[in-house]
Amino acid sequence: MAKEVKTIGVLTSGGDAPGMNAAIRAVVRQAITKGLEVKGIKRGYAGLLQEEIIDMHAQDVSDIIQRGGTILQTARCMDFTTPEGQQKGAEICKKHGIDGVVVIGGDGSFKGAQKLAEHGINTIGLPGTIDLDIASTEYTIGFDTAVNTAMEAIDKVRDTSTSHERCSIIEVMGRGAGYIALWCGIANGAEDILLPEKYNYDEQMIVNHIIENRKRGKKHHIIINAEGIGHSTSMAKRIEAATGVETRATILGHMQRGGSPTCKDRVYASTMGAKAVDLLLEGKTNRVVGYRHGEFVDFDIDEALAMQKGIPEYQWEICRNLSK
Amino acid sequence: MAKEVKTIGVLTSGGDAPGMNAAIRAVVRQAITKGLEVKGIKRGYAGLLQEEIIDMHAQDVSDIIQRGGTILQTARCMDFTTPEGQQKGAEICKKHGIDGVVVIGGDGSFKGAQKLAEHGINTIGLPGTIDLDIASTEYTIGFDTAVNTAMEAIDKVRDTSTSHERCSIIEVMGRGAGYIALWCGIANGAEDILLPEKYNYDEQMIVNHIIENRKRGKKHHIIINAEGIGHSTSMAKRIEAATGVETRATILGHMQRGGSPTCKDRVYASTMGAKAVDLLLEGKTNRVVGYRHGEFVDFDIDEALAMQKGIPEYQWEICRNLSK
Amino acid sequence: MAKEVKTIGVLTSGGDAPGMNAAIRAVVRQAITKGLEVKGIKRGYAGLLQEEIIDMHAQDVSDIIQRGGTILQTARCMDFTTPEGQQKGAEICKKHGIDGVVVIGGDGSFKGAQKLAEHGINTIGLPGTIDLDIASTEYTIGFDTAVNTAMEAIDKVRDTSTSHERCSIIEVMGRGAGYIALWCGIANGAEDILLPEKYNYDEQMIVNHIIENRKRGKKHHIIINAEGIGHSTSMAKRIEAATGVETRATILGHMQRGGSPTCKDRVYASTMGAKAVDLLLEGKTNRVVGYRHGEFVDFDIDEALAMQKGIPEYQWEICRNLSK
Amino acid sequence: MAKEVKTIGVLTSGGDAPGMNAAIRAVVRQAITKGLEVKGIKRGYAGLLQEEIIDMHAQDVSDIIQRGGTILQTARCMDFTTPEGQQKGAEICKKHGIDGVVVIGGDGSFKGAQKLAEHGINTIGLPGTIDLDIASTEYTIGFDTAVNTAMEAIDKVRDTSTSHERCSIIEVMGRGAGYIALWCGIANGAEDILLPEKYNYDEQMIVNHIIENRKRGKKHHIIINAEGIGHSTSMAKRIEAATGVETRATILGHMQRGGSPTCKDRVYASTMGAKAVDLLLEGKTNRVVGYRHGEFVDFDIDEALAMQKGIPEYQWEICRNLSK
Repeated sequence: MAKEVKTIGVLTSGGDAPGMNAAIRAVVRQAITKGLEVKGIKRGYAGLLQEEIIDMHAQDVSDIIQRGGTILQTARCMDFTTPEGQQKGAEICKKHGIDGVVVIGGDGSFKGAQKLAEHGINTIGLPGTIDLDIASTEYTIGFDTAVNTAMEAIDKVRDTSTSHERCSIIEVMGRGAGYIALWCGIANGAEDILLPEKYNYDEQMIVNHIIENRKRGKKHHIIINAEGIGHSTSMAKRIEAATGVETRATILGHMQRGGSPTCKDRVYASTMGAKAVDLLLEGKTNRVVGYRHGEFVDFDIDEALAMQKGIPEYQWEICRNLSK
Repeated sequence: MAKEVKTIGVLTSGGDAPGMNAAIRAVVRQAITKGLEVKGIKRGYAGLLQEEIIDMHAQDVSDIIQRGGTILQTARCMDFTTPEGQQKGAEICKKHGIDGVVVIGGDGSFKGAQKLAEHGINTIGLPGTIDLDIASTEYTIGFDTAVNTAMEAIDKVRDTSTSHERCSIIEVMGRGAGYIALWCGIANGAEDILLPEKYNYDEQMIVNHIIENRKRGKKHHIIINAEGIGHSTSMAKRIEAATGVETRATILGHMQRGGSPTCKDRVYASTMGAKAVDLLLEGKTNRVVGYRHGEFVDFDIDEALAMQKGIPEYQWEICRNLSK
Repeated sequence: MAKEVKTIGVLTSGGDAPGMNAAIRAVVRQAITKGLEVKGIKRGYAGLLQEEIIDMHAQDVSDIIQRGGTILQTARCMDFTTPEGQQKGAEICKKHGIDGVVVIGGDGSFKGAQKLAEHGINTIGLPGTIDLDIASTEYTIGFDTAVNTAMEAIDKVRDTSTSHERCSIIEVMGRGAGYIALWCGIANGAEDILLPEKYNYDEQMIVNHIIENRKRGKKHHIIINAEGIGHSTSMAKRIEAATGVETRATILGHMQRGGSPTCKDRVYASTMGAKAVDLLLEGKTNRVVGYRHGEFVDFDIDEALAMQKGIPEYQWEICRNLSK
Repeated sequence: MAKEVKTIGVLTSGGDAPGMNAAIRAVVRQAITKGLEVKGIKRGYAGLLQEEIIDMHAQDVSDIIQRGGTILQTARCMDFTTPEGQQKGAEICKKHGIDGVVVIGGDGSFKGAQKLAEHGINTIGLPGTIDLDIASTEYTIGFDTAVNTAMEAIDKVRDTSTSHERCSIIEVMGRGAGYIALWCGIANGAEDILLPEKYNYDEQMIVNHIIENRKRGKKHHIIINAEGIGHSTSMAKRIEAATGVETRATILGHMQRGGSPTCKDRVYASTMGAKAVDLLLEGKTNRVVGYRHGEFVDFDIDEALAMQKGIPEYQWEICRNLSK
């Protein structure tokens, strides 16, 4: 029989992402609407182990839906990767009367949620990461904002690249997953994109491409580089040496993690937050919420963590067709 | 046997929407990549009837992906609603060697495409409207940008409403479809939303809601009004009179139609533009491209025009739960 | 001998303006750095009369410099326009140990500050209004943000006006002072601007201008209308009837009052806030801070209120030259 | 007797800056209004020497006021630093009937204008640089946009720094002049700023500052670093090692050069462009336009190049007071 949940906790874990506050707000307000009590667990699993637990009321999440970051903060926690840490975490939940927890984060955070579930705490994961690198969902909280932030920055770089007839390498986030690079590649009309999923980095090919385009009268050459594919600054120097075309690198860095969330991130994060509460009310545990095939759905965490996803081939193809 | 297409035309019709330029660029570049010739038809069906037809090369669509509006312009055209006009349009296509046309617009524009198809011109429609009011697709070109524009404007109104403890009515676009209002309702945490699909406008209920919230200490009251549900300015006067709370109306108007498209609008419009060309190459006609259940798909225009869609009930429900 | 000030109050009064929070933060932090205590007076003079007075510490103004609105809120107050109200206000200051007050607002708010000064409370005014309509200063807190907000909205309207070959009337704020309209007139390349300072509104002249421009091939006609010069919606109808050119009105309204302040508004508001504290420390009273001839200066309030300023003629002239 | 000018040229030189297009548009339109002919000289002095000279009409500068970069492009030109190059440049001007030139750029570009003037071409310089590092003017075209771009990026970095309780180093432009760093220092409430003008970089002092702030409960530590003051990435590693606080570097790079200009940049660049034409009409030569003490003024180029300016001491002081 499903356990009845009366008090739930909510935490954010791993890298922060715009829209996490919208999700927190939705968890708190949906829970209160449905008659539950809510506790905020600060700084992810680290704060759980240190009992940084606060009561949350409807007004505590006023005026946060439009804010970047996470009001609950986040942190890494090595202690929670040990069986002792996990057990202690579950005991602290029980001590505070928390019988359900909503964990907002990425795959690593979901593994923590799995462990809490094994120790009898009902857990629901929400996909929160700017990288879109969670296989069980087509949407993750923060990706839409991050990709717009990167795109707007690259639009600006492009203005000056065109004025100076320069080659620009822009390094975007996504060490293991090139979605930000792919989307910006299409949206910014980049001449070249370097993705971890399509790793066949051939500098000579890029050099040839720049030289050909220059002959055809193209006034700029934009290269979008997912972090991790080589080192943008030294790449710029080598490309300039080989082509004779002035080449500069920009590393967008952590600005991609912040900023007021886009409408999609606010709406989807809110929907997912409400759904997490509804799943807890149905007695569900060890589940993650996702968005697939046009619907908000949920999966067993074990099943979700075993899924794989790749770069959509059609978009990869048109990305190259359209920048000609 | 499918007709082989060698030269295609592209036009934008109906109200303009951000991302139309990205779609035009994709049609032009994908077609050229695949060995086709491309003609731009200016000012929609009106320009077709007046033979405002220009050659389009890859460089003609350089540096437009980030621009609002449509470089091909758009116009209303009563003449094309008549059988004579439709036949003349098809003849002009043939005269210019155009054997396939991509029409970017809404349901009304698709009806025109249907007629061209009946007269032997292969046609593919792309959904372009900020209102999201096309039943055959979950995505329309321009909605994502428009809803972010509206949301950012409402964020600003909210700042000042809070400072003055004021009630604000913001009128957004969407005469027949309340998607912009619903999304902003969630994303801006609006206290009340008035949608055409949920038309049970009861001013007394809103008045009571304002008075209750004021007692509970809420410092502002945001009402989002889809255009067509009453008249915002006079509504503001009546609500102020009934509640004693200072109430102001803002009408966002046409600014929602413009602006540089968001990343999603650029990427999806580009993908749809490329797909339209691929469908023409496969010999398809009388089809519209859509996005459904997580995939880019296509439907027969007749079938698409017969579809219905409504406001998602779960989001309507949580919109009210979360603004408490 | 100058009175020594130990505890200061800060309030915002009149219409709110972006940058007021930056000014509040500067007052609080500069005062604490210099060894003073600070009290926040909520909701302007209304809150003063109701003793809504709170202690303010350095951390109370953390994370507000980037926020629109005013954390101290603002309100109209008829009671403070009476001698009884003014005396009561001064007594409440004394009761709370407040011997100096920084008033952030417009000319009306400065008149209140004058009265407090007469009753022995040292007062310094800071110019806070989006309208730039304070004669003693070339800069007012909020104008720079408001004019950028209006300009960005008009850029978007222009995209769609061009696509539809439409005439657009955009109503911006500034009932008595046309600075927002003038700046946007130049910055948006508007074809016509209607200002209260240059009131010779001749609709026939505008109609002729539209017709001439249409003949010369101009694809849009942007009219910027300072609120108060006629009624934009009915003007649109008359112009459409007279020219045959589709004409639409947009009323930007209160969104111009909100939003995160620009860099200039944050830097100048911060500098003025610090300077207000330094003036109080020097024993000054009945002064307003201004920015003139490239410097932050201060004037006697009586002198400041007697000043006049007009629209800069050179910019009015080039505005018309450059839109040709 | 002043030479009568009939045909003027306009060029942009050095690093590009947002607002240069507004200045070009103003030069072209003001000149045409006053009965002059206008030629665009592409790619600065390099394009002059290669006779890349085009006719410019009023409609050639339509729809560019809102665009970043420069439609005339810009380039470095070593040849023009030689007497032979300078003489050849003047001869090319004469050959094309150009008797006056408006040069938009920085001090280096003004030196070129000086040489053209010596060879009998009337020249007027307009200050165009994002760095504000021209001593004869309080305003340079592009600074206002660049500083807002940097500030908005740092706002986003701050969101995530707060969520992770991290130290962030943000490198902004300004190798020889720290104005962007100083303004962002105030506007973003940075805990530390490193400026070339205040060079007493003491890493131990920063380390101590971080440790003290951490004890006082500050959740983030933002360091703004003008490019050239050390190497941000290695600085981050050393600071993390010394403090134990996670520290990350972001290098904003060329995005600060692009983007749609702010209202101030559009209005001031337009005014300066018009004024340059008026000065040529008055027969002036070897002058630069500036903005000083609240007015648009002009100086002899030799005099302007000899001026010095420094960081405003009061703002430097309050920058440190207010971040406490």
